[in-house]
Formats: sequence, structure tokens, C-alpha cells
Amino acid sequence: MNPKVKIIYCTQCRWLLRAAWIAQELLTTFDTDLAEVALQPGTGGIFEVWLNEELIFSRKKAERFPESKELKQLIRDRIDPERSLGHSDR
Amino acid sequence: MNPKVKIIYCTQCRWLLRAAWIAQELLTTFDTDLAEVALQPGTGGIFEVWLNEELIFSRKKAERFPESKELKQLIRDRIDPERSLGHSDR
Repeated sequence: MNPKVKIIYCTQCRWLLRAAWIAQELLTTFDTDLAEVALQPGTGGIFEVWLNEELIFSRKKAERFPESKELKQLIRDRIDPERSLGHSDR
Repeated sequence: MNPKVKIIYCTQCRWLLRAAWIAQELLTTFDTDLAEVALQPGTGGIFEVWLNEELIFSRKKAERFPESKELKQLIRDRIDPERSLGHSDR
């Protein structure tokens, strides 16, 4: 079973567009190597990215938003460490 | 537990952008009344929309793509039949 990514975003903060952008970045890069990327509406300033049961990025912990490059690296390191991400690795 | 939507799209056909558009339409309309909208990469010309375990739209069966309006109506009828979708109901 390929891994699942989940992006939980705050609807009150209108972060759906950001979450959808990240979802498309990840699906463009990893394609069918991911089982799915799920967008989950939340509240209270949440912006979290999960890979299966692991929280790989939290806006509250990091005190900033993630860049797509770092999410791709975090996911690549866990699902296919040998893989090159091209210019995203530099 | 709020209902989950799943959109399975064909990566070979490059339907990610269409699937992501539909995801954003549904999340904008239903917001936190949906637990999630998941984008699942597939192959072979698939474009399916599921609400929990029910297939509510299949491109192969319908021989066309879904409009966002009809998906909103199909989902509304199942999760909150009294709800008005505004101009999407006309």
C-alpha cells in the first residue's frame, strides 16, 4: 500500500488554496507513488502535513508555512531516499 | 464523523488539475461539513468521485466529465438535503 498524505488546513484563515497548491505539488512530483493526498478542513490556525501517521510539518511548531521543496524532501526521505528531486534538491 | 469525498483521476491523462479544481469547489461549498476530500492518482482513463463508499460519478459510466454543480447537488442530497446551494441549484 502506497503512503497517504493528509493536509489539514484552517478554513477560517482561508488556507484552502495554499493546501490545494501543496497537494498538487506533491501529486505532480510523486504521482502514483502516493496512494492519495487528502485535504482536511480544520479550524484555529491549523496547517499540518501528515505522511501516514507521522506529522511531518506543523505551522504551529515551525511558526511558518512549509515550502513545497522541503515537504518533497521530507516525503522523499521517508518513501524513496535514493530518489533525486532534481532542482528541488539543491 | 463527517463524510469523506474521494476523487480518483488518471495521471496519464493529466487530470490532476481538473481533480484539484473539483476538490476546491467541494471544499469551498461544504467546508467543515466534509471530513476530507482526497485526491487519488489512478491510470487508464479513470475519473471517479466517491462519497464514503458510494460511487456518485464515473466518467466511464457517464461518458463525460462531471460539472461541479451536479457533484454539489449529488453530495448535498446525501448529506444535507434541506440545504440550498444558491445559484448552483438553478
